[in-house]
Amino acid sequence: MVQALDQLETPALLLDKDILERNCSRMSQRMQQAGIALRPHLKTAKAREVARLATHGHSGAITVSTLAEARFFLEGGFTDILYAVGMVPSKAKAAAELQRAGAKLTLILDDPRTAQELGKAAAELETRFPILIEIDSGGGRAGVAAGSQQLLDIASAIHAQSTLELAGVMTHAGHSYHCRGPAEIAEVAEAERCALVQAADRLRQAGYPCPIVSAGSTPTAVHAVSFEGLTEMRPGVYVFNDLDQMGIGSCTPDDLALSVLATVIGHNRRSERILIDAGALALSKDVSAHEFFEHVGYGRVCDLSGKVVNGLYVESAHQEHGLIAAAEGEPPYEAFPIGSKLRILPNHACITAAAYTHYEVLQGNQPLARWERINGW
Amino acid sequence: MVQALDQLETPALLLDKDILERNCSRMSQRMQQAGIALRPHLKTAKAREVARLATHGHSGAITVSTLAEARFFLEGGFTDILYAVGMVPSKAKAAAELQRAGAKLTLILDDPRTAQELGKAAAELETRFPILIEIDSGGGRAGVAAGSQQLLDIASAIHAQSTLELAGVMTHAGHSYHCRGPAEIAEVAEAERCALVQAADRLRQAGYPCPIVSAGSTPTAVHAVSFEGLTEMRPGVYVFNDLDQMGIGSCTPDDLALSVLATVIGHNRRSERILIDAGALALSKDVSAHEFFEHVGYGRVCDLSGKVVNGLYVESAHQEHGLIAAAEGEPPYEAFPIGSKLRILPNHACITAAAYTHYEVLQGNQPLARWERINGW
Repeated sequence: MVQALDQLETPALLLDKDILERNCSRMSQRMQQAGIALRPHLKTAKAREVARLATHGHSGAITVSTLAEARFFLEGGFTDILYAVGMVPSKAKAAAELQRAGAKLTLILDDPRTAQELGKAAAELETRFPILIEIDSGGGRAGVAAGSQQLLDIASAIHAQSTLELAGVMTHAGHSYHCRGPAEIAEVAEAERCALVQAADRLRQAGYPCPIVSAGSTPTAVHAVSFEGLTEMRPGVYVFNDLDQMGIGSCTPDDLALSVLATVIGHNRRSERILIDAGALALSKDVSAHEFFEHVGYGRVCDLSGKVVNGLYVESAHQEHGLIAAAEGEPPYEAFPIGSKLRILPNHACITAAAYTHYEVLQGNQPLARWERINGW
Repeated sequence: MVQALDQLETPALLLDKDILERNCSRMSQRMQQAGIALRPHLKTAKAREVARLATHGHSGAITVSTLAEARFFLEGGFTDILYAVGMVPSKAKAAAELQRAGAKLTLILDDPRTAQELGKAAAELETRFPILIEIDSGGGRAGVAAGSQQLLDIASAIHAQSTLELAGVMTHAGHSYHCRGPAEIAEVAEAERCALVQAADRLRQAGYPCPIVSAGSTPTAVHAVSFEGLTEMRPGVYVFNDLDQMGIGSCTPDDLALSVLATVIGHNRRSERILIDAGALALSKDVSAHEFFEHVGYGRVCDLSGKVVNGLYVESAHQEHGLIAAAEGEPPYEAFPIGSKLRILPNHACITAAAYTHYEVLQGNQPLARWERINGW
């Protein structure tokens, strides 16, 4: 039997199914209208039920950030999997095991010598890996520049290995996370697209195949003006959204599907704080949204129904204690007596969710189901 | 069969057994010499093997931060358990189940009405809870002031409930985490002790029992000059230590038992970064040690043997990518080729460890065993 919302043990990770479905449906339609494949990045949700909603109406292709996710989703029936973190030869055995279990697993890399060593590892494992070359479209994390000689060197190194198959190019415009509003995001999205299209063109001109041209972040998927030349997008956090995405301009306050249920465990009137049992582990120490908002701390406070209480935020977070402050004056002790429950909207859904083994899925604020998450590596 | 250190899958949480044992032994001896009980806080380690080492030579009493920890350690044979987060009546049922399973579970609170409601809940559950009153010794988190009327009001409220037993007072000097060096810590430790002794004296003078006088944080346990009037200390992070404790002055660089094993997955020479597969989830977003050090980021870099590489640190952390920078100039790409492994010393051991289901326990840098952790709530 499912418990009532106010009977759940805390801290708990709440997921509003209606908002989730709306977020998934909106992105799906946007990609369909753009005529582009959606390969959602499941590093945020790490849940099969979310993967089914996110891929509905699409091919079922997914993106993952760990091999543990790849195994979990493969067991859930998802076979077309892109592992979107730079591959190293020491992980080839685990990748080959996924292939033998039925995965069409695509890998990424950005270095010629790694291609060579991965090719040798694949030969020893008697397998063949499809590879995307990672392009840096401005984020400055991984990848090579679209116009660089390195791009062709990597293609050549991949091509030289009969156990590797050059399947295309990919990028993640991580710098879109520092944009403010649709116009800035659209500029980054266009830079992301142009870098990838340039890289793909250069590979093709050099005689290499480049069937896959894969971009994507939530902000750029939401606000890109053109997807021309791209074959797929890989947004992830849009399924839930969070305060950070709201600050960037990827979503509205009505689009936040995820919150943490907490119990008030104390009133400290001397320091003007309401204490809750959701601290650094339950909320994470991520402060992404500080870039956009004042008085956001480790998350904003909602009442049990999910309605934001203006000006209330988790000002500090110890391991199992969160301290709620008001932007001005004392927090409303009477509205939140000791033992009452409230909800916290996280800064960064991907990081907060990682502390939980499962979601408490709500519909109309009633607990409906538990959905399992795959954490770890 | 146990794998060699460089064959472990990454990211992995490494625990140096020799350092752990030395840290445990040193604290145990210090408490024995002070004639005070050691009730280690297991929120850091969350592992039974560490609990056994930490309680060796003492009564086996422990402190926990979640009821999940209480269940886990009870199943591991630890019965004398202090749940050191403010209790609320909605958790009474879970607490009573622990009692029925054999726990001598002590709870804490800092509010008269909560005492009343918890007493009623205990009556309905046909049980009785030992209670410590939480004192704020200067940390400003939970607890009442030692000299306050509230202290006596809470004692009276507990005393009025036949299902509650006033067992004493407790505090956590969380503000010791912002000290610099032994002299400052010793001052906070004395304030912690005096607040508790004052609270205990006031309760006794008012005719209430106060057998337990429980203080403790790692810094104050290490540097307190006097423990007079206290009956037990509850340090936690000393079992592992971390960069934050090193900055505070609780330990030396040789005392850091915990590190994260990571694989180099890329070199970004344009942004002068070495990329590793340990990012925000593997390291946490905790930046505690920034208060004490420059160039610490999300952790400091060691080679595979655990030797610190001066000036190298994880400058930024995306979900599964860590970006290593050098304090000056380029990072040493040649020393860390793609595919090689290195170790990261975390800012805050308690928060970093929470991402892992187990420790890879090392002795002389050889993997020796896996020790399970209990995460969640």
